[in-house]
Amino acid sequence: MAWNTNLRWRLPVICLLLQVALVVLFGVFVRYDLDADAHWIEERMSRNISSDLDNEFYYRYPSFQDVHVMIFVGFGFLMTFLQRYGYSAVGFNFLLAAFGIQWALLMQGWFHSFDGRYILLGVENLINADFCVGSVCVAFGAVLGKVSPVQLLIMTLFQVTLFSVNEFILLSLLEVKDAGGSMTIHTFGAYFGLTVTWILYRPNLYQSKDRPSSVYHSDLFAMIGTLFLWMYWPSFNSAVSNHGDAQHRAVINTYCSLAACVLTAVALSSVLHKKGKLDMVHIQNATLAGGVAVGTAAEMMLMPYGSLVIGFICGIISTLGFVYLTPFLESRLRIQDTCGIHNLHGMPGIIGGIVGAVTAASANTELYGQEGLAFAFGFGSSTLSWNASTQGKFQAAGLFVSLAMALVGGIIVGVILKLPFWGQAADENCFEDAIYWEMPKDQKSTVFRSEDPTLKPSEP
Amino acid sequence: MAWNTNLRWRLPVICLLLQVALVVLFGVFVRYDLDADAHWIEERMSRNISSDLDNEFYYRYPSFQDVHVMIFVGFGFLMTFLQRYGYSAVGFNFLLAAFGIQWALLMQGWFHSFDGRYILLGVENLINADFCVGSVCVAFGAVLGKVSPVQLLIMTLFQVTLFSVNEFILLSLLEVKDAGGSMTIHTFGAYFGLTVTWILYRPNLYQSKDRPSSVYHSDLFAMIGTLFLWMYWPSFNSAVSNHGDAQHRAVINTYCSLAACVLTAVALSSVLHKKGKLDMVHIQNATLAGGVAVGTAAEMMLMPYGSLVIGFICGIISTLGFVYLTPFLESRLRIQDTCGIHNLHGMPGIIGGIVGAVTAASANTELYGQEGLAFAFGFGSSTLSWNASTQGKFQAAGLFVSLAMALVGGIIVGVILKLPFWGQAADENCFEDAIYWEMPKDQKSTVFRSEDPTLKPSEP
Amino acid sequence: MAWNTNLRWRLPVICLLLQVALVVLFGVFVRYDLDADAHWIEERMSRNISSDLDNEFYYRYPSFQDVHVMIFVGFGFLMTFLQRYGYSAVGFNFLLAAFGIQWALLMQGWFHSFDGRYILLGVENLINADFCVGSVCVAFGAVLGKVSPVQLLIMTLFQVTLFSVNEFILLSLLEVKDAGGSMTIHTFGAYFGLTVTWILYRPNLYQSKDRPSSVYHSDLFAMIGTLFLWMYWPSFNSAVSNHGDAQHRAVINTYCSLAACVLTAVALSSVLHKKGKLDMVHIQNATLAGGVAVGTAAEMMLMPYGSLVIGFICGIISTLGFVYLTPFLESRLRIQDTCGIHNLHGMPGIIGGIVGAVTAASANTELYGQEGLAFAFGFGSSTLSWNASTQGKFQAAGLFVSLAMALVGGIIVGVILKLPFWGQAADENCFEDAIYWEMPKDQKSTVFRSEDPTLKPSEP
Repeated sequence: MAWNTNLRWRLPVICLLLQVALVVLFGVFVRYDLDADAHWIEERMSRNISSDLDNEFYYRYPSFQDVHVMIFVGFGFLMTFLQRYGYSAVGFNFLLAAFGIQWALLMQGWFHSFDGRYILLGVENLINADFCVGSVCVAFGAVLGKVSPVQLLIMTLFQVTLFSVNEFILLSLLEVKDAGGSMTIHTFGAYFGLTVTWILYRPNLYQSKDRPSSVYHSDLFAMIGTLFLWMYWPSFNSAVSNHGDAQHRAVINTYCSLAACVLTAVALSSVLHKKGKLDMVHIQNATLAGGVAVGTAAEMMLMPYGSLVIGFICGIISTLGFVYLTPFLESRLRIQDTCGIHNLHGMPGIIGGIVGAVTAASANTELYGQEGLAFAFGFGSSTLSWNASTQGKFQAAGLFVSLAMALVGGIIVGVILKLPFWGQAADENCFEDAIYWEMPKDQKSTVFRSEDPTLKPSEP
Repeated sequence: MAWNTNLRWRLPVICLLLQVALVVLFGVFVRYDLDADAHWIEERMSRNISSDLDNEFYYRYPSFQDVHVMIFVGFGFLMTFLQRYGYSAVGFNFLLAAFGIQWALLMQGWFHSFDGRYILLGVENLINADFCVGSVCVAFGAVLGKVSPVQLLIMTLFQVTLFSVNEFILLSLLEVKDAGGSMTIHTFGAYFGLTVTWILYRPNLYQSKDRPSSVYHSDLFAMIGTLFLWMYWPSFNSAVSNHGDAQHRAVINTYCSLAACVLTAVALSSVLHKKGKLDMVHIQNATLAGGVAVGTAAEMMLMPYGSLVIGFICGIISTLGFVYLTPFLESRLRIQDTCGIHNLHGMPGIIGGIVGAVTAASANTELYGQEGLAFAFGFGSSTLSWNASTQGKFQAAGLFVSLAMALVGGIIVGVILKLPFWGQAADENCFEDAIYWEMPKDQKSTVFRSEDPTLKPSEP
Repeated sequence: MAWNTNLRWRLPVICLLLQVALVVLFGVFVRYDLDADAHWIEERMSRNISSDLDNEFYYRYPSFQDVHVMIFVGFGFLMTFLQRYGYSAVGFNFLLAAFGIQWALLMQGWFHSFDGRYILLGVENLINADFCVGSVCVAFGAVLGKVSPVQLLIMTLFQVTLFSVNEFILLSLLEVKDAGGSMTIHTFGAYFGLTVTWILYRPNLYQSKDRPSSVYHSDLFAMIGTLFLWMYWPSFNSAVSNHGDAQHRAVINTYCSLAACVLTAVALSSVLHKKGKLDMVHIQNATLAGGVAVGTAAEMMLMPYGSLVIGFICGIISTLGFVYLTPFLESRLRIQDTCGIHNLHGMPGIIGGIVGAVTAASANTELYGQEGLAFAFGFGSSTLSWNASTQGKFQAAGLFVSLAMALVGGIIVGVILKLPFWGQAADENCFEDAIYWEMPKDQKSTVFRSEDPTLKPSEP
């Protein structure tokens, strides 16, 4: 395989084309939501709203900023653990997310914020766009080190589209609750990414076998990502919940689940090492599984101990996954999952979907109150048309739809990305920044093999 | 000393036992606070609250997130300055804090949020749990590099318990004001940690003398910790203050004190070096002393210039402490204070307690207004039962109680930790990640001595 | 040139003098704003404000914290890209900002928050002080590596003063809108800094030619700065906007502009490299130009597509600037712009000023509503005295005033800084931490030349 990895025309052309298209579509379709429009002051007077604070901005903006940090610093730095792929981890994540949020504003806007003529943009749209891109960041973890930025932009284009369709089916057609996205973001993102990497299977990847590991400082950079994800996950799961108690409760549940998860991840990491030593991979990843797994149920009356139980279980399952399942997936199923997203987002996402279904199915007026139940599940104050067990079944259905969309979509997108002209690196040059980045002098001495005329061995 | 540092069974067993106990206790005792319960909407209607924003969540959540960052990224990265102890600094801090917040929710809950049957959990509990763990992070700084994660979990278990008792005595019995925790968090945490490290004295610690210093990039990682602590400290000191002006004022005072502190820390760092050069240790630590020292008084009418004066003094004292006192403590008092917490939390904490007592004693209706005084010191609108000088005396008493609790508690916990079976490292292997962590290849070549059968010298 | 770089007396004396002066001035002039004063509760009752939330604190504090992170972590780490200047980048930025915010509270306070006797301090003052210091951080980027901390403190003293005068002329006399500071912060800061570095021209700077480049990990540290600037820029541009829709809109516009900017910066970075590789310098800097360029217009009805267009253009111009203009400025105009601030703040700042003028000039009641127009441009509900085209002209005038102030001020300050006794390093020792910092052992082996008796060559 001697593919041409010189992106001099391909990358600029696709970036500029996409951005021009976005400008045009925004011009045609996108305006401000009333809360962000200069007419708001008149509306406020006419609706007799007493305080400026009753603008959606003040309910959501702090959470939005936390989510924003998770997408760009959290996911970006989490993936810098590779010794020679830090630029790409943080840089390509930056690129795909910056493109993805714009495209998500349009796709999600057409489905959820379209007034017949315009998509009306407010802070909640910004959060949802970040959520959508979160699922792309998850999938990026599976293909990390093996794809070119051109492939990533194409994957983002398709995945955001599929995400929005799937989200519309779940939230609008099945009327599923999934505020923290266990199903829409994590399950969908993980199985989509795993399917793509399965299609892109590289049998000779062992040739770059030294690079997909960490060095001391790259692990510390990755901990920056881990910690910002861990700390801000309560904001993630509560960002688009109902005002008031739902946001408050989602924070508490997520906080509890994440805390429990750390202890069991540490326990398993130690017990699975023959000398009882801890493995940074587990600390960086499995400690987050608890946040994924309460994504659906966090805003429900899951109870703090319920959250602890979920975190407890997920810390164990996720660490076991890293030790036993990831090698098995690679050797038997030909799924090369660079960051182990199956352990952090895949299994915990499915658990989160199931927990959500069970929690919804057990909802009752004693637990929620009459008004509270109606408000939490959004069926007005009449309970006639709604019952908990049906909600539970629809939640379960949502999980299956997400899995199906991920698998089918992943196959299609994987096949497209397999085309040989997207600038992907040869097997022996995977996990290597120098293919796509101008490197500082101290790093030029690493030897890698010439793969095409554009890639000369570095001078000694 | 040839202790067994293989934690394969000890660490997992203690993690799982603690987490199981927490799950059970949460199941029996913990429910949602009304503001986080689905019944809130009915309560809101019945109490005729006009806006969803009047949920405690919206007053406290942004501050909570900042405090959360300080505990996990702030303290975690501040301690990564050691060249070969970054994994442990950030990883063990993560572990102890994740355990500590859960245990603190219970302990503080029983004392402050217990309705007779249940502990009711809201965002303020989450902040207070972070605060409580903050004092453990402080103490961790004194023993950094010399204890095993098992010892840290045990220390956390006891310290959180003692913290909660001490906090109850101060806040509920003595009715002391200490919103930013100069006494409860910093003084208590620092002197507790110093007492523990005094009991754990290692006379032959010089054998690992090369490791307790920094390398270039480890100092930059530590600056991440410093800056997040410094920037978010105003949130720390205001997070649980009264709504409105008290939160607002606490932010301004902390901001001023911290700013002044930077200039005097830099001045002293330069003047105490024979070539006038700055020392990263001072910039990383002494610049924060101003935040510690306004912890008690920040919400009072300290005045911006008062805050500047405190910051001014603490920057000087803290830097002097690093240069003269830390070596003295080690050589004469056998107190090996790895991070110099005596300079950052000990002395500034005591100063903060004194400043709080003086500021409270000078409170009067001219300065606060009739209503303002009643609100600030929480004695209803009748001033009959309260006078400033008594408040000042009780504040001073609170400082002594905190010191006494720290010393007695530290001795007990220190003796427990001195037992030889907690997996602590031998003197020549302190400050070394490789004892407890699987290391990446680039770091394996460091030579350290075999101490027991589980620890072979690394291959060359 | 064999200047004495031993700062043992100069740096401490200036730090302590400045801080003492600040304490005295704060004592004489600074008190709390009503919203932060203990009398607020009485005021609240008398004004019949129903909720504690109607304290300015709750409108502005989350944005303030984001801005605070941008100044200290954002700018500080952005400049750590130099391989041997990380301590200085983040440490000197910390020092100058800590001094600058205090001085800015006074200067801006006298102009904008003075009640005849006292400067009244609230959260908005803290934000504005951070903004003011932001312009100093910009200028620091131009002289990075070539000045001593003493020079930086002097520059800060003067620049904050000039900034405040310029800001007063623009906001109070010309009644210009500039919430995100395209003109007051970025244009002024950039051209001030460029003028200073022009005056301080070092013809023999090539002697330290190896150091003003990055190493692998220094580029990752810089990405921390880039991402926190990028993520929090929406808070920056909205922090002092009017309550409600204006803050909301400023966030949306900034978010859009920044996202577009990333794609065009990546496109240009690739197309301008002969092998199509990306350059970290562009990713770290040009991706932020979109935030600068909507600083003035973000709170106006710029429309989301308008923001995208601006980001699109600025990503291109900024990257072109790094490739072609920066070398030209150095070789022909003798302007040595270490961080390329002309590309990130200079040109985009001017574009931002122009965009603001045009957007203001096109304001009308159809777009804003009658009330909305009055509120947005602050002329009460009578439109008699105001018209859009005049506003546009005044906006344009504001841009020229800012440029003039920057050039004149920069020359004066540059001449002062050129005096030979401020401890600046010789040309061959620029971009080198070891001149002003005690270094850890691993870094001592770097060879640099003795320049004065205080600076011995390191032992081999």
